[in-house]
Amino acid sequence: MARGQGEGRSSTVPAALPEPVALLVGTLGPDRVLTDPDLVASYRFDRSNDPSAGWPLAVVRATSAEDVRRTLQWASAHRVPVVPRGAGTSLAGGSVAVQGGVVLSLERMRAITIDRLAGVAICQPGALNVEVKRAAAAEGLWYPPDPSSFEICSIGGNVATNAGGTCCVKYGVTTDYVLGLEVVLADGRLLRLGGRTVKDVAGYDLKRLFVGSEGTLGVVTEVTLRLRPQPPPAVTMVASFADVADAGRAVSALTATLRPSALELMDQVSVRAVEAQLRMGLDTTAGALLLGRSDAGGDRGQRELEQMVACCRAEGALEVFWTADEEEGEQFMAARRQAIPAVERLGRVLIEDVGVPLPKVAELVSGVAAIGEAHETTIATIGHAGDGNFHPLVVFDPLDPQATERAQRAFGAVMDLAQQLGGTITGEHGVGTLKRPWLPRQVGPEVLGIQRQLKQLFDPLGILNPGKAL
Amino acid sequence: MARGQGEGRSSTVPAALPEPVALLVGTLGPDRVLTDPDLVASYRFDRSNDPSAGWPLAVVRATSAEDVRRTLQWASAHRVPVVPRGAGTSLAGGSVAVQGGVVLSLERMRAITIDRLAGVAICQPGALNVEVKRAAAAEGLWYPPDPSSFEICSIGGNVATNAGGTCCVKYGVTTDYVLGLEVVLADGRLLRLGGRTVKDVAGYDLKRLFVGSEGTLGVVTEVTLRLRPQPPPAVTMVASFADVADAGRAVSALTATLRPSALELMDQVSVRAVEAQLRMGLDTTAGALLLGRSDAGGDRGQRELEQMVACCRAEGALEVFWTADEEEGEQFMAARRQAIPAVERLGRVLIEDVGVPLPKVAELVSGVAAIGEAHETTIATIGHAGDGNFHPLVVFDPLDPQATERAQRAFGAVMDLAQQLGGTITGEHGVGTLKRPWLPRQVGPEVLGIQRQLKQLFDPLGILNPGKAL
Repeated sequence: MARGQGEGRSSTVPAALPEPVALLVGTLGPDRVLTDPDLVASYRFDRSNDPSAGWPLAVVRATSAEDVRRTLQWASAHRVPVVPRGAGTSLAGGSVAVQGGVVLSLERMRAITIDRLAGVAICQPGALNVEVKRAAAAEGLWYPPDPSSFEICSIGGNVATNAGGTCCVKYGVTTDYVLGLEVVLADGRLLRLGGRTVKDVAGYDLKRLFVGSEGTLGVVTEVTLRLRPQPPPAVTMVASFADVADAGRAVSALTATLRPSALELMDQVSVRAVEAQLRMGLDTTAGALLLGRSDAGGDRGQRELEQMVACCRAEGALEVFWTADEEEGEQFMAARRQAIPAVERLGRVLIEDVGVPLPKVAELVSGVAAIGEAHETTIATIGHAGDGNFHPLVVFDPLDPQATERAQRAFGAVMDLAQQLGGTITGEHGVGTLKRPWLPRQVGPEVLGIQRQLKQLFDPLGILNPGKAL
Repeated sequence: MARGQGEGRSSTVPAALPEPVALLVGTLGPDRVLTDPDLVASYRFDRSNDPSAGWPLAVVRATSAEDVRRTLQWASAHRVPVVPRGAGTSLAGGSVAVQGGVVLSLERMRAITIDRLAGVAICQPGALNVEVKRAAAAEGLWYPPDPSSFEICSIGGNVATNAGGTCCVKYGVTTDYVLGLEVVLADGRLLRLGGRTVKDVAGYDLKRLFVGSEGTLGVVTEVTLRLRPQPPPAVTMVASFADVADAGRAVSALTATLRPSALELMDQVSVRAVEAQLRMGLDTTAGALLLGRSDAGGDRGQRELEQMVACCRAEGALEVFWTADEEEGEQFMAARRQAIPAVERLGRVLIEDVGVPLPKVAELVSGVAAIGEAHETTIATIGHAGDGNFHPLVVFDPLDPQATERAQRAFGAVMDLAQQLGGTITGEHGVGTLKRPWLPRQVGPEVLGIQRQLKQLFDPLGILNPGKAL
């Protein structure tokens, strides 16, 4: 019925729909399958802007688990690769389209139900993180994980990458909140894992195997998240340091003493980029800023704040400012969250996501600065310092081939450094397409072999998000 | 060399060592392999006292990962079942011996290293939970998970069952603390998973697949645990209720409002059993006691205490007592921990470990009381009420066949009830041998099939802890 929908619009897709696509349209109905090349094109990339993105045959906009099941059954029958996609905010290429495949968008599945007494949210995968937070807040509850993109990223994508954020240093990451999952496997089988029970050890922890699997083992169609009571208002500290290494040492000292509710670092390049955009009076002469928060509440919160201030001073902080005003504190956090978009104004950006053990934070951040110098490349470093998880942003001019090559070498050198320091190439964004070359050395051949066997077990035809994560 | 060590000691094992055992002794040395039947006998049972325990051929007392590797290589070569064993405190039969197999005891591998700045403990599996806590405390740090058996259970067993405890309502369970694992697979391959980095999403979360797998996928030879700073001193509340259902409703109301650092329930039978032993003046006329704690500290802790008291009063608490004295609070917690041994004095006990969503707590605890009455069987109910995780203790006289049969039916009825309420048959003890018949209905045939495929992938010969968990 929708045959030929895209006719004559572009030379990059065939004028008539290939037969499998026509069958897919017939199965799901034309309102759920986009084949118009202009519309399809808008689903090719994610926020990584990975240039290797292919042209998909079509985009399925699923409205139910049944749509997802039918799409995967069809894909298995016709051996068509499927790229599950939430809001397309992956920074690692986890949701870039595959040539000749189908993009399975979950953006229309965004129902959220809060069970206040059970303290859970039952969410469809396309619901945005911020929508989950709002729905929980309306019942006096809180969903903690808060990627910087929380206003635009989907909860399904958060599950697929085991997303983190600024509060995770105290409250944990996505997997710590997943009580139950509904997942459709590559062959269309639907699994229900876990439920609303807080503790459950019956059988292997399949749920947590799907979390962070980047859409390569199954497609999440529903997630049950544990919520928390709202925390007390936070107090906020901002410390400036002459050198990023001083800030790094303060991080290690501070995390050995207390568990702040956020501990974020911004180096000079990122502070300047943010200040150029927001003009909020950040100290652009400092080598680095450290933002620390405590939501312990009352006198305990005050004591934690004092401990943080003392740690920063002991490591040579130039200035330390603090505030108990929640709005003012939130402005500093918003500045930190603005860092990636602000740095993206300086040029094309390759986004790192390295993590190291906490005592290695100073070595990592000063090592990254040295890599920038050695490669004559601007690197802005921001990060969830309290987790040892950093996002060095490698900036370059994509029209300058030499600068591009230097940037790519710097990008690799940062991951090499993290590995040398006993760390990881990705703390919260996932491997996607961009970090695949570094995965074998990260996990070693034995573990990689087992990862491949697991992939084979769940997706024997290899149709789910091929070329990602593994 | 140790050939014939067990000669003539017992008619239940052969007089001469079977050839494979002789080879094992030859490989590991006689000091690491027990074959004396009296000694072997002491490794047959765990705290479940499952009568189906078999007679093992030998007990390996490993001193290193290399010993574990060699044992598993030998077991693979000779197709001998291996039962990994920590301290043998399983309440579900997870470490009972298998007829003709080998018990692989990790009790001699108990090294603990604390890296204070990284905030981690690197532990061998035989280290006791309490030893990890003490080593952490010596550096001003804290390892939270606290099964009631924390003074006698091993950290390897905690990992194998994903053990919980009283503080887990606020601080999470074992899996939330595992940053890294060293695991030996059935074929002797050694895997290193994760490390000391707080956040790591490179590749599938294999680490968390091994946690809770009850020694059926691999043998943990080292675990890296995340530690926390010590929390402030806790304030403690004890509320008495006329009826266990009232206490159940108070639990649901309370957990919807705040996250206490412990919330434990004891019904009348368990209170009386504990009081008979400890004589500490507990109210033995009440239908149930609820113990609540807050370690939020300072004025915030005081406010949480007041909130808990208000919730209990609103649900009809008879009396509410509270104390800011840590030692006094700890005495109440010790009384709660004493419940299982105290109830065990009343007769043979079948230990449940059911969990339900929080709004179902009142239905569960009153349902369990009704099951006791209907089956004319004493059931003492205690539990980690704030997690919806309960341990109804089914008491019976093993010399009375009718009473035994009634108890077994009551044991099943409690699990049936938990499943009807959308809950689980095991929250923290594992499936072991005792709960296996209920697992298929718990997870469903599709998931069970996948669990079996995973088992097949990691242990194709089926030598690792056969007859457990799956």
